[in-house]
Amino acid sequence: MVLTFVILCGLIGVAYGVWASRSVLSASAGTQRMQEIAAAIQEGARAYLNRQYRTIAIVGAVLFVVIALLLSIEVALGFVIGAVLSGAAGYIGMYVSVRANVRTTEAARQGLAQGLAISFRSGAVTGLLVAGLALLSVAGYYVLLLALGAEGRAIIDGLVALGFGASLISIFARLGGGIFTKGADVGADLVGKVEAGIPEDDPRNPAVIADNVGDNVGDCAGMAADLFETYAVTVVATMVLASIYFGAETGIFLYPLMIGAVCILASIAGTFFVKLGSSNNIMGALYKGFIATAVISLVLLLPATALLVGLGTSYEVAGRSFTGWSLYFCGIAGLVVTGLIIVVTEYYTSTEYRPVRSVAKSSETGHATNVIQGLAVSLEATALPALIIVAGIIVTYLLAGLFGIAIAVTTMLALAGMVVALDAYGPVTDNAGGIAEMADLEASVRETTDALDAVGNTTKAVTKGYAIGSAGLGALVLFTAYTEDLAFFSQNAADYPFFQGVEVNFSLSNPWVVVGLFIGGLLPFLFGSMGMQAVGRAGGAVVEEVRRQFREIPGIMEGTAKPEYGRCVDMLTKAAIKEMVIPSMLPVLSPIVLFLIMWAIAGTSAALSSVGAMLLGVIVTGLFVAISMTAGGGAWDNAKKYIEDGHHGGKGSEAHKAAVTGDTVGDPYKDTAGPAVNPMIKITNVVALLLLAVLAH
Amino acid sequence: MVLTFVILCGLIGVAYGVWASRSVLSASAGTQRMQEIAAAIQEGARAYLNRQYRTIAIVGAVLFVVIALLLSIEVALGFVIGAVLSGAAGYIGMYVSVRANVRTTEAARQGLAQGLAISFRSGAVTGLLVAGLALLSVAGYYVLLLALGAEGRAIIDGLVALGFGASLISIFARLGGGIFTKGADVGADLVGKVEAGIPEDDPRNPAVIADNVGDNVGDCAGMAADLFETYAVTVVATMVLASIYFGAETGIFLYPLMIGAVCILASIAGTFFVKLGSSNNIMGALYKGFIATAVISLVLLLPATALLVGLGTSYEVAGRSFTGWSLYFCGIAGLVVTGLIIVVTEYYTSTEYRPVRSVAKSSETGHATNVIQGLAVSLEATALPALIIVAGIIVTYLLAGLFGIAIAVTTMLALAGMVVALDAYGPVTDNAGGIAEMADLEASVRETTDALDAVGNTTKAVTKGYAIGSAGLGALVLFTAYTEDLAFFSQNAADYPFFQGVEVNFSLSNPWVVVGLFIGGLLPFLFGSMGMQAVGRAGGAVVEEVRRQFREIPGIMEGTAKPEYGRCVDMLTKAAIKEMVIPSMLPVLSPIVLFLIMWAIAGTSAALSSVGAMLLGVIVTGLFVAISMTAGGGAWDNAKKYIEDGHHGGKGSEAHKAAVTGDTVGDPYKDTAGPAVNPMIKITNVVALLLLAVLAH
Repeated sequence: MVLTFVILCGLIGVAYGVWASRSVLSASAGTQRMQEIAAAIQEGARAYLNRQYRTIAIVGAVLFVVIALLLSIEVALGFVIGAVLSGAAGYIGMYVSVRANVRTTEAARQGLAQGLAISFRSGAVTGLLVAGLALLSVAGYYVLLLALGAEGRAIIDGLVALGFGASLISIFARLGGGIFTKGADVGADLVGKVEAGIPEDDPRNPAVIADNVGDNVGDCAGMAADLFETYAVTVVATMVLASIYFGAETGIFLYPLMIGAVCILASIAGTFFVKLGSSNNIMGALYKGFIATAVISLVLLLPATALLVGLGTSYEVAGRSFTGWSLYFCGIAGLVVTGLIIVVTEYYTSTEYRPVRSVAKSSETGHATNVIQGLAVSLEATALPALIIVAGIIVTYLLAGLFGIAIAVTTMLALAGMVVALDAYGPVTDNAGGIAEMADLEASVRETTDALDAVGNTTKAVTKGYAIGSAGLGALVLFTAYTEDLAFFSQNAADYPFFQGVEVNFSLSNPWVVVGLFIGGLLPFLFGSMGMQAVGRAGGAVVEEVRRQFREIPGIMEGTAKPEYGRCVDMLTKAAIKEMVIPSMLPVLSPIVLFLIMWAIAGTSAALSSVGAMLLGVIVTGLFVAISMTAGGGAWDNAKKYIEDGHHGGKGSEAHKAAVTGDTVGDPYKDTAGPAVNPMIKITNVVALLLLAVLAH
Repeated sequence: MVLTFVILCGLIGVAYGVWASRSVLSASAGTQRMQEIAAAIQEGARAYLNRQYRTIAIVGAVLFVVIALLLSIEVALGFVIGAVLSGAAGYIGMYVSVRANVRTTEAARQGLAQGLAISFRSGAVTGLLVAGLALLSVAGYYVLLLALGAEGRAIIDGLVALGFGASLISIFARLGGGIFTKGADVGADLVGKVEAGIPEDDPRNPAVIADNVGDNVGDCAGMAADLFETYAVTVVATMVLASIYFGAETGIFLYPLMIGAVCILASIAGTFFVKLGSSNNIMGALYKGFIATAVISLVLLLPATALLVGLGTSYEVAGRSFTGWSLYFCGIAGLVVTGLIIVVTEYYTSTEYRPVRSVAKSSETGHATNVIQGLAVSLEATALPALIIVAGIIVTYLLAGLFGIAIAVTTMLALAGMVVALDAYGPVTDNAGGIAEMADLEASVRETTDALDAVGNTTKAVTKGYAIGSAGLGALVLFTAYTEDLAFFSQNAADYPFFQGVEVNFSLSNPWVVVGLFIGGLLPFLFGSMGMQAVGRAGGAVVEEVRRQFREIPGIMEGTAKPEYGRCVDMLTKAAIKEMVIPSMLPVLSPIVLFLIMWAIAGTSAALSSVGAMLLGVIVTGLFVAISMTAGGGAWDNAKKYIEDGHHGGKGSEAHKAAVTGDTVGDPYKDTAGPAVNPMIKITNVVALLLLAVLAH
C-alpha cells in the first residue's frame, strides 16, 4: 500500500509535468522572427542533446555489459533504468525550456506577471519531472525486483546500480553541458564584446545562438541530471542503511520513499504560490513558492512519519537510541539546512551585500584587483556553508545517529522538485531576453525580461549552493553505506569469501587512510583543472570560428548578411562531447585503480581502507572547491551587473572592462568545473559501492 | 657525546654563517648612488622587522604567561627559545641580504660568476643560520632541560612549546612579510606599469623602495622563519614519537638530531660546489650544490645510522618490525621526495615547459583567458606533488611503519640549510637588479642581474614547493604525535585524570571525525581569503599614496623631484602589521574553540576525536590550496617573463598586458596566501599538542 502511494505520487509529479508543459506550449510563440530564432535554438539544443546521449549510450552499453557480467542482468537493468529516466527528465525539461523561452518573450510584452507565469511554469516542468521520475525509478524498480523474486543483497546491488546509471548521465550532462555553455559564452564574449564591440545577444554575433543553446543544455539539462542523481542516490543509500540497520521488511525501509512522495505533493502545491504580489517583487514570488513547499512538507511529513516509523516507537542503532519524533526533527533539520544554504549563497552572490560590492569596487583599480578580490570572495564563501553542514551533521547525529543524517539529507533532497523549478526558470528568462534582443523588440520587453533574468541569475547560484550542499551530505550517506556494507561483508565473510580475514581500519592514524584522503582530495582539483582547460579550448575554437565568419562573410557587421549560427553550434557540440569523456572517466576509474594498486602493495584490508578514505577525501576537498567556484563565479557575474547598473562608472568604464574580465573568469568556474564536481563526488562513492558488490559476488 | 657532536655541528653551521657574512660584507658596496639606494632599502627593512618583532613580542609575552601558568616556567622557556632563535635566523639573514644586494650589483659589473658568488653566499648565510640555529635550539634546550632535572612528559612538553614559539614567529613573518611584499608589488605595478607607464624598478615610482624591501621581508625573512619552524617542529615531533616508541634513553631518540647534524656538514660542503661552469648555466651551478649536499648527506647518514640505531638491529612498533637499514632507506626516500618535488615544481613554473607556455599562449585572447588558464594550471599542479607525497608515505611506511615516515621527513628537512640558501639567493638578485636600474648603471649590469634574477624566480618557486611538501609531511608527523600522545594519556589515565574514560575513535565512520575534517578543511580556504583581501587592501592603499605623490609633488615624472619613498614603506609596515594579527590567530584559536564547543556538546572523547580529525583536515585541503597557489602564481609570473622574452607579441603587446594581469593576480597567491598556509597547517597541529599537554596537566 505504501509503495502504491509512493508510485502514485511519482506519477502525479509526472502528470503535473505533462499538464504544465501543455499549458506552456499552448501560449503564443510570438512573431515570425521570434519563432525563427527560437527554432534555431531548439534545433541546436536538440542536435547537441542527441549527440550527447548517443555518446553516453555507447559508454553506457559497455558498462551495461560489464555490470551484467560482473553482477547480474537484474542489476544491469537497474543501471539502465537510472540512466534512461535521468536522461528523460533532462531531455523533456529542455524540450519544454527551449519552447518556453520565446513564449516568455511574447508574454513579457503583456507584463511582468505574465512573463513570470510562463517561465516559472516551464521551470516547474523540469523540477517535477526530476523529482517524479527519480522517485518512480527507485520505487518502481524496487517493486520490479520484488516481483522478480530478488531479495537481500540483490535488491541493494540493483538500487546502487540504478544510482550509478543516474550518476553517469549526470556527470556527462554536467560536464558536456558546462563545456558547451561556457565555451559559447566565453567565445561569444571575447570576440563580440571585447573585439567587435557589439552587445551581448547581438544577432550579428555568429556565436549568439550557441550561447542561448548553452544556457539550456547547461543550466536546465545539466542541473536536472545532477539533482536527479543526488535524489536517487541519496534515497537508495538511505534505504541501504535502513536495510542494514532495521531489515528490508520494516516500514522504516520505505520511509525515504515516503518522504519523497509527500514532498512531491508539497512541491506541486508550492508552485501555485508563485504569484507576483502588488510590489512586483519577483524574488519574493519565487520565495513564496519555496516557503510554501517547505511548510507543507513539514506538515505532511508528520503523518508520514507516524505511519511508517511511529512517532513514539524507539529504535537503536550502534548504541544510539531514538524515536520517530527524532527522525521527524531530522527532517526539519534538513529543511533548515536547505534554507540556510540558500540565504548564505544569496548573501555571497547578490548585488545587495558586501561580497559582490567589494568585487565591484575592486574593479576600479583594474582587471587584476577584480580577479584577486573575486578569488578572495570565492575562498571565503566556503566557510559558512561548511559550518551549516557541520551543524546539520552534529544536530541530526545527536538526534538519531547516522540514520538521522541520512533522513535529513533525504528530506533536503525531497524538495528538489521545487528547487529545480527555481533553477530551470533561469535559462528560460535568459533566452527570453536574448530572443527579445535578436528579434529587435521594443525596449520595454527587454526591460521586463532583464528583470526576470536578474532574479534568474540569483536562483541559478542559489540552486548550485543547494546542489553542492546536498551532494556533499548525500555523499556522506553514501560513504556511510560503504562502511556499513563493508562491515556487513566482513561479519558475514563465510558467505562472501573475498572478505575473509579482512580487517578494515578507518582510523586516521592508519597511513593507508591518509593515502586515501590525499588521493581523494586531489581528484576535485585535477577534475576542476580539466574542466577549466576544456572550456578554454572550446572557447578558443569559437573565437577562431567567429573571427573567420567576420572575415569571410562580408556584411555581417552591417546586418546585411546572416552569420552561420549552425557552424558554431556544431563545432561546440563536437568539442563538448570530445572534452567530456576523459574527465568523466576520472571518478569512475579512480576508486578501481586505487583499489588495485593498494591491493597489490599492501593487501585487501589496506586497499579497502584506502578506497574508503578516498571517498571522504573527495567529499572534503570537493565541497570546498565546488562551493568556492560557484559562489565566486556568481559574485563576479553580479559585480559586473552591479557596475552595469551605473555604479563605479557604469557600462563602458574601465571598471566595467575589469568586471567583464572577472565575469569571464567566473564562467567556467561557476558553470563548468564547480557544478561538475558534484556528480564527481557522488560517482566516486557509487563506484566504490559497486566495487564492494563485485568483490562480494 | 652524541649531543656534544650535534651541538658542535649546529655551532659549525652558525660559524659558517658568520664567516660567510663577513666575506659578503667585505666586498665593495659600489658607488655613492648605489649605497644611497641600498641604505634606503636597509632602513625600510630594519624599520619593518623591528616593528614586526615588537608586535610579535607583545603577543609572545601574553602567550609566555599563559603557557607558564598552564604548564610550567621551563616549558614557557622553550617557547621563548624557539621564538627568539627563529626570529634571529630571519633577522640576521635579512641583515646580510639587504647588504648583499648592492654588493651583488657591484660584483655583476665584473661578471656573472662574481655576481653569483656574492648572492649565493648571502643566501647561504640565511640557510645555514636556519639549519644551525634550529638544531641548536632543539639540542641545546634538551640539554638544558636535562640539566634542570626535567624528565618524561616535561621534556616533551618543553620541546613542543619550543616548536610553538618557532611557529608563532613563522606565521607572523609569513603573513606580515607576505602582505608587505605583495601590497608593495601590486600597488607599485598598478600605478607604475599600468597607469604611469614607467618600467619596473623605476626610481620615479614612490613605491619602488618598498617593493625592494618587500622582497627581503617576504622571501628571505619569511621563508627562513617558515623552514626554521618546520625543521624544529618535525625534529621535535620525531623525537616525541621516538620517546613513545622506544623511550627517551635510547640512541634512536637522538637519531633525528644526528640526521640534522650531519646534513648541516653536508650543506656547508655543498655550498662550495656552487660554481659557474664554462657553460655559464646558473641553474646548473645551484643544482650542483644541491646534488652535492644530497650525496654527501647520503654518505654521512650511513655511519650516523650505524652508530645510533645499528644497521642490523631490529625494532618493532605497532606490529611492524624494521631494522636500522630500513630507517636509512627511509632517509633516502626523504631525499628522493625532495628531489622529485623540486623537479615537478620546476616543470610547472619554468618557461621551458607546457604549463607556463599554455598560460602565455592564452594571453593572446585576453586577460580573462590568461587567468582561466592560470587557474587551471594551478589546480593541475597539485596532482603530481600529492602523488609523490603519497608514494613517500607508502614506501616509508612499508619500510619502517609510522616512525619511518617521520625519519623520511626529518631527512627531507635536514637539507633545509641548502634549500633556504637557494631561496634566499632570490631576493638578493632581485634587489641587485632593482639597484642597477635605480642607480642608472650600464645596461650590461642589468643584463647580468636579470640572468641571476630569472633563476632566482625558479629557485623561489621550487623552495616553496619544498616548503609545502615538507610542511604537509611534517604536519602528518605532528598528527601522529597527537594520536600517540592521546593513546599514551588514555592508557595512563590513572596519572592523567582528565583522560579517564576517554575513548577516542578516529574512524572515518565517526561523525565527530567528519565534523573535524570539514572544520579543518575550511581553515586554509578562509585563511587564504583573509590573506588575499589583506593584500588587496594594502595594495589599494599604496595606489592611493602613489597617486597622491604624483599629484602633489611636481617634477617626479621628469626626474627633477624625489618621491617620498619612506612614506610608502611606513604605510605598508603599518598595514602589514595590522593585517597579520587576526588571520594569525585563526589557527591558534581554532583547535581550542573546536575542542570547547564539541566538549560542551558531545563530551571529551568526541571533542578529542574532532580536534584530531581537524588536524588532518587542515593538512589535506591545506596541501592542495598551498601548492595550487604557489605553483599557479609562479606559472603566471614566468608566463609574463616568457612573453617579455619576445613571444606572442612581446613587451607592450595586448598579450603582455593580459600576462601582467595574471602576474598581479598570482602575486598574493604565490607570495602571501599560499606560503602562509604552511605555518598555518603546522601551528594548528602544534597547538593541539599543547592542548593535550594542558589537559593532562
